Amino acid sequence: MNNKIITISREFGSGGRYIGEKVAEKCGIEFYDKKIIEKVAQELGISEQIVAQQGEYAPAKSIFSYAFVGRDITGVSLADQIYSIQQQLIKDLADKGPCVIVGRCADFILSGRDDVLNVFIQGNKTEKTERIKELYGKSDAEVKKLLKDVDKKRSVNYRYCTDKEWGNRKNYDVVLNSSVLGYEKCIEVIADIYGKEKQN
Amino acid sequence: MNNKIITISREFGSGGRYIGEKVAEKCGIEFYDKKIIEKVAQELGISEQIVAQQGEYAPAKSIFSYAFVGRDITGVSLADQIYSIQQQLIKDLADKGPCVIVGRCADFILSGRDDVLNVFIQGNKTEKTERIKELYGKSDAEVKKLLKDVDKKRSVNYRYCTDKEWGNRKNYDVVLNSSVLGYEKCIEVIADIYGKEKQN
Repeated sequence: MNNKIITISREFGSGGRYIGEKVAEKCGIEFYDKKIIEKVAQELGISEQIVAQQGEYAPAKSIFSYAFVGRDITGVSLADQIYSIQQQLIKDLADKGPCVIVGRCADFILSGRDDVLNVFIQGNKTEKTERIKELYGKSDAEVKKLLKDVDKKRSVNYRYCTDKEWGNRKNYDVVLNSSVLGYEKCIEVIADIYGKEKQN
Repeated sequence: MNNKIITISREFGSGGRYIGEKVAEKCGIEFYDKKIIEKVAQELGISEQIVAQQGEYAPAKSIFSYAFVGRDITGVSLADQIYSIQQQLIKDLADKGPCVIVGRCADFILSGRDDVLNVFIQGNKTEKTERIKELYGKSDAEVKKLLKDVDKKRSVNYRYCTDKEWGNRKNYDVVLNSSVLGYEKCIEVIADIYGKEKQN
């Protein structure tokens, strides 16, 4: 495989986003996370906050989104519109050149290509809790709830968009536990696999 | 974590056993696979073939094993005896010094230790089929059946012995797809993680 694209899926608090950003730096390739949100928000003329929430955490056609989320004149829900634009954007970005893309079902969206390395970052509860407390200044009780809720929402969103199971090892080429390996080692391993494969 | 032990769990045909052996060579540590079978067979005075089959592929107390497998005078099934001796042996081997242990629920058996790196090797159907055909000289139809059956048996055995799900990414620190990365890269990555961690 001649890797051009790295997708990073991650458990909340595992440092997957940070690892992805550093891998991109190390490999000298683009990193797409917030840029996707900005672009989708721009296209739809809505706030980035709504895109961030709906783009990765909402089951696009649940009863709730049906009831509460705005629709365009054709009756397509906002969450569906976001997914549709996000999907096209991710395909375009991958066509554009080597990059790291975090979350947003990118592993599934790019599954037709043969130059994608799909990575999943997981972690242990203690280390994930510490990271979330540090990053977001949350209490223990809030972190406990977040740890459960965020991954559950990602999982439901992934199931809706892909009809596959989020976090199932079979969807990924590499799964690393950042609590055991440490962030630096995860960055090194992924960059090393990417670099090696590029030369093939 | 100061790794001393590497456990390798693997899909049938993924080359996990080969990768484990080469990692042990590269790290200059012991490799235990057949030695465990020999030792257990010796202790129980039974054939190595029975140990190989029952030690990793039998649900120890299924209706079938209850009916057909020999029992000692206390009524403990042969499969249970094998698991019990295997369990103690794996603990002893881990106490003895750095090593790679393949299969046999070693990740679960050693879960009380903090010096174990748990690895899972998976592969794609095409590459696994090729490997099994090459190694065992089987037909396409036989390989198809084996691919399904062997992992299913490992899974049932693991569930029986550990009450956990075989192959669930959460049980492992590192999961690699050998069809995507290639055997050599898998060996390099695992040895690298092991080496680095040893120096911590």
